[in-house]
Amino acid sequence: MASESRKPFLPLDPMSFTKESKAVIDFIADYYKNIEEYPVQSRVEPGYLSASLPESAPYCPESLEDILKDVNDCIIPGLTHWQSPNFFAYFHANASTAGFLGEMLCSGFNVVGFNWISSPAATELESIVLDWMGKMLKLPSSFLFSETGGGVLHGSTCEAAVCTLAAARDKALKELDGNWENITKLVVYALDQTHFTFQKAAKLVGIPPSNFRIVETSFSTGFSISPEKARFAIEADIRSGLVPLFLCATIGTTPSGAVDPIAELGKVAREYKLWLHIDAAYAGSACICPELRHYLDGVELANSISMNPHKWFLINMDCCCLWIKEPKLLVDSLSTDPEILRNNASKFKAVVDYKDWQVVLSRRFRALKLWIVIRRHGLANLMHHIRSDIGMAKRFEAFVAKDDRFEIVVPRKFALVCFRLKPKKEAEGTELNCKLLDAINSSGRAFMTHAIVGRIYVIRCAIGTTLTEEHHVDALWKLIQEKAQNLLME
Amino acid sequence: MASESRKPFLPLDPMSFTKESKAVIDFIADYYKNIEEYPVQSRVEPGYLSASLPESAPYCPESLEDILKDVNDCIIPGLTHWQSPNFFAYFHANASTAGFLGEMLCSGFNVVGFNWISSPAATELESIVLDWMGKMLKLPSSFLFSETGGGVLHGSTCEAAVCTLAAARDKALKELDGNWENITKLVVYALDQTHFTFQKAAKLVGIPPSNFRIVETSFSTGFSISPEKARFAIEADIRSGLVPLFLCATIGTTPSGAVDPIAELGKVAREYKLWLHIDAAYAGSACICPELRHYLDGVELANSISMNPHKWFLINMDCCCLWIKEPKLLVDSLSTDPEILRNNASKFKAVVDYKDWQVVLSRRFRALKLWIVIRRHGLANLMHHIRSDIGMAKRFEAFVAKDDRFEIVVPRKFALVCFRLKPKKEAEGTELNCKLLDAINSSGRAFMTHAIVGRIYVIRCAIGTTLTEEHHVDALWKLIQEKAQNLLME
Repeated sequence: MASESRKPFLPLDPMSFTKESKAVIDFIADYYKNIEEYPVQSRVEPGYLSASLPESAPYCPESLEDILKDVNDCIIPGLTHWQSPNFFAYFHANASTAGFLGEMLCSGFNVVGFNWISSPAATELESIVLDWMGKMLKLPSSFLFSETGGGVLHGSTCEAAVCTLAAARDKALKELDGNWENITKLVVYALDQTHFTFQKAAKLVGIPPSNFRIVETSFSTGFSISPEKARFAIEADIRSGLVPLFLCATIGTTPSGAVDPIAELGKVAREYKLWLHIDAAYAGSACICPELRHYLDGVELANSISMNPHKWFLINMDCCCLWIKEPKLLVDSLSTDPEILRNNASKFKAVVDYKDWQVVLSRRFRALKLWIVIRRHGLANLMHHIRSDIGMAKRFEAFVAKDDRFEIVVPRKFALVCFRLKPKKEAEGTELNCKLLDAINSSGRAFMTHAIVGRIYVIRCAIGTTLTEEHHVDALWKLIQEKAQNLLME
Repeated sequence: MASESRKPFLPLDPMSFTKESKAVIDFIADYYKNIEEYPVQSRVEPGYLSASLPESAPYCPESLEDILKDVNDCIIPGLTHWQSPNFFAYFHANASTAGFLGEMLCSGFNVVGFNWISSPAATELESIVLDWMGKMLKLPSSFLFSETGGGVLHGSTCEAAVCTLAAARDKALKELDGNWENITKLVVYALDQTHFTFQKAAKLVGIPPSNFRIVETSFSTGFSISPEKARFAIEADIRSGLVPLFLCATIGTTPSGAVDPIAELGKVAREYKLWLHIDAAYAGSACICPELRHYLDGVELANSISMNPHKWFLINMDCCCLWIKEPKLLVDSLSTDPEILRNNASKFKAVVDYKDWQVVLSRRFRALKLWIVIRRHGLANLMHHIRSDIGMAKRFEAFVAKDDRFEIVVPRKFALVCFRLKPKKEAEGTELNCKLLDAINSSGRAFMTHAIVGRIYVIRCAIGTTLTEEHHVDALWKLIQEKAQNLLME
């Protein structure tokens, strides 16, 4: 050992930690300053990076300068710039200074809070902040720790879906005489606008793919699920000897931002004893504004609800809130009690052990960033953030509505506008708008994506990156008009 | 809008980003400087934090100073200090400056690389770094992208377990005429020292809990799985009409650091067509050293292997490498093809879309930290890091061996030492060592945890936090002797 330790190897020395970390802070700040100079969607070709990097790891250390030079020369060109104010694709992933500070503290402390004892603050702050968040959304207190419910931070909606589906599955199997063979009888219901992650999650937990019912939506219901259709599907399954298990309703669907009628679906779920989960991944954040809270009406009938603050709530990736009315069901399904983690606090059930509320054992201290974002901005500014984005979406919607060449395809509810260039013949609609979208994106000046709703190809303009201001929306509209003009002249 | 926008709300302004981030860097550096002053295991009581924080979120913004004061006064006392050099519990979670820099860049760019097109650099760097890592471990090229295999970064072993189990399950169900009812016939094998996460994962993917076979280990096999016992269990299941599916072998078990005989188990798995997964979560990192690589002998017979660089490879949480020989099986099981994500690169199969290799859709750019840690240190220093920890573990082991009052219970292979204070009567062993462990941990000067191996309660001394030096190990031994002396005098 003596000979090897001659070279000092100090991978966490506070002096160099400070110096190198501050150099990276400056690098990131420069990135934000220059972000509008990059094409929003990366223009690299598949396989571009392997030409720039060696085939295997270096034997000797390299300098931070060399690494940052490569980040600049090789990585940044291959990024699609999700933080660009001209990013209007998918749903945005809001970064913020406060969210970043929370991530730094999380990574700096680097504790692993799988159970209470392994870092009590990680568990307790998470429970407290989930109650804060639940109160901001005016969730019924039955979802909060202050009563008999509770919340947990997952990384993504899919993890929340897997966990709630597993809890619902195991509850049902227990009620069906504990016979695991009944797993093939369980049926999950969603609509064609439900996030595909629920279909993946249902298959993951062992529900036969043929037992995943996709209820079709249409213009007539504003692309939300119709309670009658859901009831019809459920009754057909019961007649076939199947067991309806789980119904997923959405606040702000990914394709069009539609909202399912929670209260009516809740009645259907109660009637047939289905687990009702509400996926508010995107639009949940908006429901902190009193004027938008009505979209959550009926949530008291749900068993669980999830939303992603990493989308629209200024929280850096990743962060998904899941609340559940009966955490016991989650714990019954997911708990493990290995000798190696036994401790008195857990034994006497005095504490929450979050490992039993999620898929994974290891967990980051995500609550820090949610706590810091909420405190640093306060409810007032968080509402302002949502309203400002919705205001910009209204402005964009008005631009589209005023131009006869275009049409709004789905009525806007939040900050997502689904529109298209009107085709001369309906059959040409997809090709025309595909071309338009491609022209816009390949300009590098903006990035949007598409969806198909009611068989119509629409361009989605999702407004809401942290840096987007009114003039970016105005420039986007000019760009769209310019590219549309070119297309129509062809 | 006009009235609301009077107050400037700039949650990602580069100026304040820089200023506030640097303040937090200084805060974290101070934390590292002072880390030895805190009791390693938190001493708070359940519910401690709710007394210090308000019941609901603030309406108005608060200053960073106030927030950092609360982190200092309310959060730090509730942390168990995983980065303390006196942390010898569970397995360590190595933070490092380089890992932190990677986390900062990941959080700063805040891209979501669910498919190639959404940020090509995120996907390509991950594939390249997984090949680097695979080569460092001298994995057969059949696990690398450079041939027909490939790797992916998950957050944790449990996610890797869920995904490989789902892939194995779906392959088997397809071979069994595609009838989903056969899910109740599938059997998973592990040993009593296998990480409990595999049992959780098997249940999660719908394998009946009664079909999870736990093969008992004993002193005679060094607490590793015996191929004969595995074969016996498999044949009994076949006779009962069940279908052996999956066998998990471990390199460095959690209780004792045992290593299963991979080559022999591989032969059994081949013979009965089981999916062999190797869980090298802890000790995989050590196998970059040529003198330890032999523990991986036989890996060519496995279908998949996972290891956690966030444990012992200087990577801040969270990071789990999973390699698989036939990525197609993972994709067949986990892929989704929603309209909203369709793009030409994916359509023509020219690229990897990592959303189809994992549970979740949203994913952080974790490859950055792995890439930066490897480059910043180089293979040379990374091997030094492992060898230095093993050297310290040998030193500790020698202390224990020299003291007649103590015994080493399991032969040490890596940097985990399982020992105990010898009881006068065997029946008193658990209580005596429980008391000893409690006395050590409640001193605040060190933190270890326990395990039960071969029905014996052992104290686990896991050496390997980034900041641990020889003098910390020496002080730990003195502390143990002092507390043992007190106990024996009682």
